[in-house]
Amino acid sequence: MASEKNEAKEINTKRQSSVNQHSQNEHHIHKVGVPPRQKLFKEFTSTIKETFFADDPLRPFKDQRPSRKLLLGIQAIFPILEWGRSYTLKKFKGDLIAGLTIASLCIPQDIGYAKLANLAPQYGLYSSFVPPLIYAFMGSSRDIAIGPVAVVSLLLGTLLQNEIDPTENPVEYRRLAFTATFFAGITQVTLGFFRLGFLIDFLSHAAIVGFMGGAAITIALQQLKGFLGIKNFTKNTDIISVMHSVLGSVRHGWNWQTIVIGASFLGFLLFAKYIGKKNRKFFWVPAIAPLISVVLATFFVYITHAEKHGVQIVKNIEKGINPSSVKEIYFRGEYLPKGFRIGIVAGMIALTEAIAIGRTFASMKDYQLDGNKEMVALGTMNVVGSMTSCYVATGSFSRSAVNYMSGCQTAVSNIIMSFVVFLTLEFITPLFKYTPNAILSSIIISAVIGLIDYDAAILIWKIDKLDFVACLGAFLGVIFASVEIGLLIAVGISFAKILLQVTRPRTAILGKIPRTAVYRNIQQYPDAMKVPGILIVRVDSAIYFSNSNYIKERILRWLRDEEEQLKAAYLPQIRFLLVEMSPVTDIDTSGIHALEELYKTLQKRDVQLVLANPGPVVIDKLHSSGFANLINEDRIFLTVAEAVSSCSPKLVEEA
Amino acid sequence: MASEKNEAKEINTKRQSSVNQHSQNEHHIHKVGVPPRQKLFKEFTSTIKETFFADDPLRPFKDQRPSRKLLLGIQAIFPILEWGRSYTLKKFKGDLIAGLTIASLCIPQDIGYAKLANLAPQYGLYSSFVPPLIYAFMGSSRDIAIGPVAVVSLLLGTLLQNEIDPTENPVEYRRLAFTATFFAGITQVTLGFFRLGFLIDFLSHAAIVGFMGGAAITIALQQLKGFLGIKNFTKNTDIISVMHSVLGSVRHGWNWQTIVIGASFLGFLLFAKYIGKKNRKFFWVPAIAPLISVVLATFFVYITHAEKHGVQIVKNIEKGINPSSVKEIYFRGEYLPKGFRIGIVAGMIALTEAIAIGRTFASMKDYQLDGNKEMVALGTMNVVGSMTSCYVATGSFSRSAVNYMSGCQTAVSNIIMSFVVFLTLEFITPLFKYTPNAILSSIIISAVIGLIDYDAAILIWKIDKLDFVACLGAFLGVIFASVEIGLLIAVGISFAKILLQVTRPRTAILGKIPRTAVYRNIQQYPDAMKVPGILIVRVDSAIYFSNSNYIKERILRWLRDEEEQLKAAYLPQIRFLLVEMSPVTDIDTSGIHALEELYKTLQKRDVQLVLANPGPVVIDKLHSSGFANLINEDRIFLTVAEAVSSCSPKLVEEA
Repeated sequence: MASEKNEAKEINTKRQSSVNQHSQNEHHIHKVGVPPRQKLFKEFTSTIKETFFADDPLRPFKDQRPSRKLLLGIQAIFPILEWGRSYTLKKFKGDLIAGLTIASLCIPQDIGYAKLANLAPQYGLYSSFVPPLIYAFMGSSRDIAIGPVAVVSLLLGTLLQNEIDPTENPVEYRRLAFTATFFAGITQVTLGFFRLGFLIDFLSHAAIVGFMGGAAITIALQQLKGFLGIKNFTKNTDIISVMHSVLGSVRHGWNWQTIVIGASFLGFLLFAKYIGKKNRKFFWVPAIAPLISVVLATFFVYITHAEKHGVQIVKNIEKGINPSSVKEIYFRGEYLPKGFRIGIVAGMIALTEAIAIGRTFASMKDYQLDGNKEMVALGTMNVVGSMTSCYVATGSFSRSAVNYMSGCQTAVSNIIMSFVVFLTLEFITPLFKYTPNAILSSIIISAVIGLIDYDAAILIWKIDKLDFVACLGAFLGVIFASVEIGLLIAVGISFAKILLQVTRPRTAILGKIPRTAVYRNIQQYPDAMKVPGILIVRVDSAIYFSNSNYIKERILRWLRDEEEQLKAAYLPQIRFLLVEMSPVTDIDTSGIHALEELYKTLQKRDVQLVLANPGPVVIDKLHSSGFANLINEDRIFLTVAEAVSSCSPKLVEEA
Repeated sequence: MASEKNEAKEINTKRQSSVNQHSQNEHHIHKVGVPPRQKLFKEFTSTIKETFFADDPLRPFKDQRPSRKLLLGIQAIFPILEWGRSYTLKKFKGDLIAGLTIASLCIPQDIGYAKLANLAPQYGLYSSFVPPLIYAFMGSSRDIAIGPVAVVSLLLGTLLQNEIDPTENPVEYRRLAFTATFFAGITQVTLGFFRLGFLIDFLSHAAIVGFMGGAAITIALQQLKGFLGIKNFTKNTDIISVMHSVLGSVRHGWNWQTIVIGASFLGFLLFAKYIGKKNRKFFWVPAIAPLISVVLATFFVYITHAEKHGVQIVKNIEKGINPSSVKEIYFRGEYLPKGFRIGIVAGMIALTEAIAIGRTFASMKDYQLDGNKEMVALGTMNVVGSMTSCYVATGSFSRSAVNYMSGCQTAVSNIIMSFVVFLTLEFITPLFKYTPNAILSSIIISAVIGLIDYDAAILIWKIDKLDFVACLGAFLGVIFASVEIGLLIAVGISFAKILLQVTRPRTAILGKIPRTAVYRNIQQYPDAMKVPGILIVRVDSAIYFSNSNYIKERILRWLRDEEEQLKAAYLPQIRFLLVEMSPVTDIDTSGIHALEELYKTLQKRDVQLVLANPGPVVIDKLHSSGFANLINEDRIFLTVAEAVSSCSPKLVEEA
């Protein structure tokens, strides 16, 4: 077959060169190439490879000795063995400063975030001790800062309290939290190991922006409890319930001392943020401001005994590092499926956040990040975390940014942070006793404000209206209903968009751009000219079962519209329908059927079907289905220009 | 802005014409067109129109007087008012013959299909009386034959008996059947009215082939009960349970008289089919063979009194036309949601079958069929049917083919058939008393054999292996589990394929085809040459959140692979990465982000990013997001050839 093709090409070329001497309009006619047929097994393996191993993770293992392969394998699981060997004192200096900075930021945040998850404050600190350590050995991002984060804490808190009341049954609640954390880790490891990481791509950027913004506002509203010193606060997270709680307690529920402390420190924190934004040199000001606030506020409460005037304080925070929680995980019973379900949701969201952060910083410093390997690292750290009294940890937006700006070089900054948290747990926790809740609320409010990304929302509005609908839907869903509803809306709209994309692909009418052999969309290029007697339609998508009927009908509608116009203007009718197939990357059996039906319908109307530039997969399938023979192989051209120059003489003959 | 653009174009053109006189290598440089910005509302309405009104159903209403619009509206709902006015005696002759032929075929089939749905035989006949009448007034297909069909009867029977035992509670069972029929109709009307008809396109052709084949075998196996005269037969439909029943009753359950009658008439029916296939003139032989068999077999049993020797007969079939069943539909209570759910499934499958038939014959006779209008017609007929003791009716493959071959002209053939069924119900039903069940089984077996489409399955295997997996999955699911499981597998694989398609689009490296300015996939065109220093990558899909990361990573991997090869061969490195965007029909915010990240990464490696031929939507979004400014508008070209000829001199300068 290959020799046949070559012969045909030779003949073509010869014919062409003689033609070319005579006529300028005629171009080189090249046959549409039919790629060599692949063996079934090879086709199968290459499809699998492109789908699941698109990043070619086994490349370094190729052509290596077995012992070297083993070493590389261990290094692949523990990247620290690789980068650790070239670790220098200079790098350590950067990591030390960054680690200390993020530690000072994470300690007050952790205590606050644990409250969002309805857990005692020490669990936040626990989750900043073990997981970052594990991640430092297994993760490949150099900039991510690991620990509890606001959105996941809120999500976990909401989902868990739907099942168990945290104030009535704190022990069961905590056990369910560890169970959910365990399954969150398992979910992450599984997705990574089976290379299904692409699943998190189904949450669109727009949906994440909306979801994060909504979650930030919800979290900030939740802080009004601590900020205003309200005792009876709703358990719902929607804005209406919260505002009802807040306004309902104006007369007898608000505590002015609390408000003074909270408001003054919130002012301080926002001012520190402003300074950090204004001058990048002072990035450390907002980073250490929270710890300073905590120290000052704690000292202030301690000397004035404001807690006796209704200022709520942390009171009790356990001393010592993480106790084991292996036996607290529900491996059976009615809470197992609940923990499983909550774990999957929390694990996916945590993953989305961590991978987004990892990718952002990897592209800023230009290093490769294997998403699937990252997921295994993050998952392992959460599985280990669930056994050492931690709840779901992931990469934090705010702390990772501080980590990056403080000059972190490797994941060692996470080890430093972890060590500082260890010292805190061992020695300093009792000092947090007099820390007012209001200051924690202020810290959380000033942290989550950064999650509201106006600019991104405005850009989304500018670029894509449907994306904006997804963004707004997620945002309003979180604010007015709950985090879960918001998440569902986000995923739902994202999926609807995909379905819309595959059912209603675009088609365009092409015209010739004057003084070129280039054919382009006449809507985009108003000076492009239609070719008389030939209608050129470009199909802008693979032709699959989900759109084959639409594409057929749409092409026929273009033809009908065009013929009506021509009739009205007493111009000659269309004799050739040229389908430009460059963007048609694939076709399935339904697509072939649709083409056959199109061909038959056109035959009845005495219009000839001509194809231009089908891709390798498509031409292969056109041949194997016999469609190429049906319409005659001479009707398939390499370019639109060639097809037109081949049809035009026939039009002249007929006229 | 428009005037600016025109000016720029003029300048460009002028510059070009002067350049062209000097150099042959330089081409006309055309700016990439930016389509005029649409107003938000216009953009919105045009998107809605393309999505839901792609077939432009309101076109005939345009520019008409209100009275004319009303008339057209009524005609749109009742197409019979339109084609009825040009109805002629000649057409009636065709319809009469076709109607009588399909009536003779449908009567025995109906009785058998009603058994598949676990209903008394008259309900099959009822469903061939009212629904075809309604359809004839509202439907627009000229060839479809309406009535009960095998697959829907089996599906309905299976789903219903999961809820209620038909032998123990026949009345409740029948009521639930009417409820399901009602909601099947409502589902169909709703889909049609809200123009969501494209949803049925999500069941791929391959999945339907597999599902139908599996259902046909399951139905044939079910007939072994009547065919072999077995009394204790399993209620499961999977092949293992059925074979267990059949083989377990070999010794004492089979009835040889029954087998003789069944086998001889099955032989006769298959022979008639063979004759009809061999010579198209004798298409009527297989069409009337079933009725002849029934008459002969009934007469034979009547004179020999074979029913006393264990030959099972129809026994009782009620006389008279459809009684009202309005009050039997469950509009409240626990069966309402069950009927609702079953109705949705049965309605969708019935719709899939009817629309497939309608489209096939419409394209054979070249007339337009509005899928959404068809759905309203089919839905209305089932809603009315559910109130007149009918169960779900739809278009029958076998009878529609006979209808077409008998020369039907319009839906009047359905009216004729309906009238014959009316006469049968009123006068002849008592005569069916002695009809042996075995003959009905033979008729069903010979009918459903036609649903097994080997050729289609072989073609699917040839064209698309993944499609074949969907086909096989549906087939095996139906045979070894149940119709529902098979359906679930079919829908699941179809969806997985869509998701795969949108997450893993193809990319290709392009090379220049010698002696042309055409750049094509080097895998498809082995003689296409890469351009030194420039890597040309074509992205074959819209860039959305679901694939933006993959596309970015994949492009970088192409670059890495290429650079390694070049390095090994001591060739100059890549300086320009040219992304051919012709097939990129759309881009969303995530896509823009990915491009930005790609740009930054390339900057770090000192590789310039160049784009060729972005489409109208893409160029618009590149501008509104500021990306066009970021990479510099000069880096966006109309064609690959122009981009290459613009980059090449820079490469020479640098060298």
